[in-house]
Amino acid sequence: MANTVAPYLCCKDAPSALDFYKRAFEAIETLRWPDATGRISHAEFKIGEAGIMLADEHPEIGFLSPQTLGGTPVLLVLTVPDADAFFTRAVSAGAKAIKPVVDQPYGRRSGQLEDPFGHRWDVGSPIEPAHS
Amino acid sequence: MANTVAPYLCCKDAPSALDFYKRAFEAIETLRWPDATGRISHAEFKIGEAGIMLADEHPEIGFLSPQTLGGTPVLLVLTVPDADAFFTRAVSAGAKAIKPVVDQPYGRRSGQLEDPFGHRWDVGSPIEPAHS
Repeated sequence: MANTVAPYLCCKDAPSALDFYKRAFEAIETLRWPDATGRISHAEFKIGEAGIMLADEHPEIGFLSPQTLGGTPVLLVLTVPDADAFFTRAVSAGAKAIKPVVDQPYGRRSGQLEDPFGHRWDVGSPIEPAHS
Repeated sequence: MANTVAPYLCCKDAPSALDFYKRAFEAIETLRWPDATGRISHAEFKIGEAGIMLADEHPEIGFLSPQTLGGTPVLLVLTVPDADAFFTRAVSAGAKAIKPVVDQPYGRRSGQLEDPFGHRWDVGSPIEPAHS
């Protein structure tokens, strides 16, 4: 079997975060386990084939959101067929543009976003590397 | 093309983090761009086929480590062929066991680790789901 790594995001108000990812990133919700209060114990969604998990804060196990921590130490590098269209749609839906989408010299056309829940995304598409 | 998502980790003392991942997770370093001071501007490694990036802190762009933030809002869900062997090796190399490796009812045998740089990992292998 092949090794994989997938991010599991902590979000304050995870139901709203899931709604946001569906609207802004065209995410498809594949699983949601709410608790008795509507808080999300565990959810899964896909952006195309890329699988991501999320849950509400669980302070009792030290699972805290970027809003509570004051930032995130993990940038989520998302590769999509059309970074420009993805970026524009996400910003229209309320994501904050950190760096605009531009051609990078290393064969990627990409920009950076911060979503309303404090997670940071590098969104890019492959391009031909620049000649040096 | 298929969408992908890959984590990009901020680590305080990224050269030591990269050494740790090589020793503890059998990571293969595939790229390292040091700056003039030896700080890592950008590095890439693989755990089997799973690609991960990392860099030192860059406070000027708000890229801060779990140690500086006081935690992480992203759990890294790593699927490997032998979670028990992976977990044992990682703990021997200095990772902290948060939850031991056990059979989960949802078809995964997994445990949780915190590495010495503050990133959290769920390490698991597929198993047959339990019958309900």
